[in-house]
Amino acid sequence: MSASQTAIQPTREQDFPEWYQQVIKAADLAENSETRGCMVIKPWGYGIWELIQQQLDRRFKATGHENAYFPLLIPLSYLEKEAEHAEGFATECAVVTHHRLEAVKDEVTGKTKMIPTGELAEPYVIRPTSETIIGAAFARWVQSYRDLPLLINQWANVMRWEMRPRLFLRTAEFLWQEGHTAHETKAEAIVETRMIHGLYEEFLRDHLAIPVIPGEKTENERFPGADMTLTVEAMVQDRKAIQAGTSHYLGQNFSKAQDISFTGRDGTQDFAHTTSWGVSTRLIGTLIMAHSDDDGLVLPPRVATKQVVIIPVTPKEDTKEAVLASCQALAETLRTTRTFHGDPIRVNVDTRDIQGGQKKWDWVKKGTPIRIEIGPRDIESRKVCMQRRDQAPTEKSFMDKEEFIQKVTDILQNIHDNLLNNATQFRDANIIACNDVAEFHAHWSKENPGWLLTPWAGTSDEEEQLSKQHKITIRCLPIPEAGLSKELLEKVDGACFFTGKPSQTIAIWGRSY
Amino acid sequence: MSASQTAIQPTREQDFPEWYQQVIKAADLAENSETRGCMVIKPWGYGIWELIQQQLDRRFKATGHENAYFPLLIPLSYLEKEAEHAEGFATECAVVTHHRLEAVKDEVTGKTKMIPTGELAEPYVIRPTSETIIGAAFARWVQSYRDLPLLINQWANVMRWEMRPRLFLRTAEFLWQEGHTAHETKAEAIVETRMIHGLYEEFLRDHLAIPVIPGEKTENERFPGADMTLTVEAMVQDRKAIQAGTSHYLGQNFSKAQDISFTGRDGTQDFAHTTSWGVSTRLIGTLIMAHSDDDGLVLPPRVATKQVVIIPVTPKEDTKEAVLASCQALAETLRTTRTFHGDPIRVNVDTRDIQGGQKKWDWVKKGTPIRIEIGPRDIESRKVCMQRRDQAPTEKSFMDKEEFIQKVTDILQNIHDNLLNNATQFRDANIIACNDVAEFHAHWSKENPGWLLTPWAGTSDEEEQLSKQHKITIRCLPIPEAGLSKELLEKVDGACFFTGKPSQTIAIWGRSY
Repeated sequence: MSASQTAIQPTREQDFPEWYQQVIKAADLAENSETRGCMVIKPWGYGIWELIQQQLDRRFKATGHENAYFPLLIPLSYLEKEAEHAEGFATECAVVTHHRLEAVKDEVTGKTKMIPTGELAEPYVIRPTSETIIGAAFARWVQSYRDLPLLINQWANVMRWEMRPRLFLRTAEFLWQEGHTAHETKAEAIVETRMIHGLYEEFLRDHLAIPVIPGEKTENERFPGADMTLTVEAMVQDRKAIQAGTSHYLGQNFSKAQDISFTGRDGTQDFAHTTSWGVSTRLIGTLIMAHSDDDGLVLPPRVATKQVVIIPVTPKEDTKEAVLASCQALAETLRTTRTFHGDPIRVNVDTRDIQGGQKKWDWVKKGTPIRIEIGPRDIESRKVCMQRRDQAPTEKSFMDKEEFIQKVTDILQNIHDNLLNNATQFRDANIIACNDVAEFHAHWSKENPGWLLTPWAGTSDEEEQLSKQHKITIRCLPIPEAGLSKELLEKVDGACFFTGKPSQTIAIWGRSY
Repeated sequence: MSASQTAIQPTREQDFPEWYQQVIKAADLAENSETRGCMVIKPWGYGIWELIQQQLDRRFKATGHENAYFPLLIPLSYLEKEAEHAEGFATECAVVTHHRLEAVKDEVTGKTKMIPTGELAEPYVIRPTSETIIGAAFARWVQSYRDLPLLINQWANVMRWEMRPRLFLRTAEFLWQEGHTAHETKAEAIVETRMIHGLYEEFLRDHLAIPVIPGEKTENERFPGADMTLTVEAMVQDRKAIQAGTSHYLGQNFSKAQDISFTGRDGTQDFAHTTSWGVSTRLIGTLIMAHSDDDGLVLPPRVATKQVVIIPVTPKEDTKEAVLASCQALAETLRTTRTFHGDPIRVNVDTRDIQGGQKKWDWVKKGTPIRIEIGPRDIESRKVCMQRRDQAPTEKSFMDKEEFIQKVTDILQNIHDNLLNNATQFRDANIIACNDVAEFHAHWSKENPGWLLTPWAGTSDEEEQLSKQHKITIRCLPIPEAGLSKELLEKVDGACFFTGKPSQTIAIWGRSY
């Protein structure tokens, strides 16, 4: 057995962060580049992003949003308009100060070097997010209540200078979508903010097989400039939290700073109520940490670049052609006659001229949901040997080919359901209700402590104090329909564990990425 | 008739550049932003780009290419590696020199201002194109001939600081795709370069209804660092040329500069032969200038965001509901039962609460291929009133609804064919064969002079001299199968019009965007 036919080293237990890097490497998803903090997303990783994009885009369009594109560079003066926002992003902005290069000869080495020249009167920042530049366009577009609501989405790259980058989860440049909408009333803007929040929750669950806790961020954790930030929080296998997507109600903060005003139905001038919301390539990091195992990547079927891989088993030269033909025919049948959630099944036949065991392990590590082997004997018997990524690599089942063709959609759905169930059970087993200060303090010295659910009525300062002390944050104040079990919710007292004040508010505390 | 129900002012004849701006404005495609030279692409314009993207992407994938994503920022040292390349882009590079902002109080005004801080040891340029950063990745990925060919495409934004920006045609930031491939041999790389060249020609013709002249660029006009640049050249209605797409054979220039080397079949080390190729949002500018008329935008059906718009005619309140229901039913039938080149028909019902004439003119100006009106009387008679964007706005034809449903695909194809034929006839009428120096010199003082086709055996210096003298360029040396008419080709002598030297090479000269 060659090195590449073994499990990922180290295991999750041994060293989770290093395991994560090795899963990405073994699946050929992405790699670091020489541009500080920026990654190269390789085809197998980018394929996941393309599927996330397509599927989310359909949902955005079905809910009335249109795509547009706005400039990458934001004039500094735009950023300055909303003070809280500017402060929030100031420490991580890449700044463009020059617009050309000049070749100069190094007197010592004799080599030609390029140096920046053509200094700009006003520098630009590369968008860390686009509220300010999209707001400037909205101010031009919105005149009357008839121009509202304005429902825009942008697919784009953004840049936040990260000091501790980590592939997919935290990179200086990342890909995302950012929705930006403007509304006549606060009520309508809140409906939009909540609708997208729900859309994200569903998307994570139904497409990525990740159960998230939807809730509201506390004031301390809000998006800079927002009146309300809703979040969906995922727990991954080291029991840390990942903020997987956010939806913000921005009130009239940005519209006042940027003059997004309109003539209302009664003829008076008013400022629009705006929202913004986004998910990013961070979703890929989240799904890796949520589902993958010590054998490598495990892909949720809906976002698997290939859902089925067919491996021809060709021990003898004289039957090789027939086996290959049989594999290609099966692939074609699956592609053209079977669908999963409305999309044709994505199938690959691995015709590479390498050893069969190596092929199998490549696809295990790449996380393909279903592996099929067809050999010379299977052609006559019309059987296939099926292996599933949600089962041990040694498990296999033999099925009639026709039966497999009929059932492939069900099997993919079953794999999705298993991933979702496992992740839900894991999460639920790692959220503990806590009503007691001493218990709370003691909890965070445990290894991989998971999350605590507490009653909460503390101030922002008290929240910050506890957060700093234990390197934790309030991940969210879960909404009542958050999917937390009744048993768990019943264990939470009606008084804040810290202040003793009566409280209907519950909070989830945890470490996070 | 309100101002918006009239033709575009000025007409093409009166002022072509201003007409172009007004077509874009009337169709709501894009607008300038306060970021110098950068545009905002509005939903109606971005929709065209999404369709171009989808349809090209399918072709790239069908020919074995995979998408990936590389960093936006390129270390200066990377750019310096290929001297000719660096020089070619030096004057238009946006340079990132700092990675944070600091708030300082202006002593005079008392206001807080943000200033750049955190100077970078090595500045970065925003990619003007990605040969150098993708080459660095290829150098890591390619070890052996088994790793070749490497066929990668990237959809991305790029930035070239333009001094005279023009919406879509020349903007500081633009969206594009850039293919980058590496091959074992020169022959294979040339096959790739030519295959993509052919793919672009077909795409322009079959999707955008634009007949292009495919050919090779002269050395003067090549991509910086390339051994061969192939181009597809479109003629637009002011008879200027637009370079609509290019495919470059880069030889071993970049692979030597960046060490993209591999162990060959015979065990020796060699450098890969690389190619790169791209089209951009410039295609949108090209199609506007190629097809639009004095009434506004004319969209080729395959890239029309909406191919059919249905306008309910509701003179009386009591029949309004029935008319609306009939319109929605027709839209649903078209969407679910009819396709055009494999994609569902894109239909919109215009339910806005504005006057019918206004609606009609909005869709004329937005270039929608087919407009349908349905009124109360049409419901009983099961008729529709159809208008086509390739015909005068006053022309209409009444059809049985069933017949329209059956024929919609043919009508769209017929509109496409008409646009292509018109553009081809226009182009062919404006290319003149020229074998005489005096004639050549005299030609360029004409208004909208079109293109000249000449025999050519001059040097690069002679080419430059003629180019500067008349503000023209050799658009390309057309390939024999370029689609130029036999009559035209027969008019070209076997000796260069300028040097008198015998020559088999022909050249197309023209002004360009």
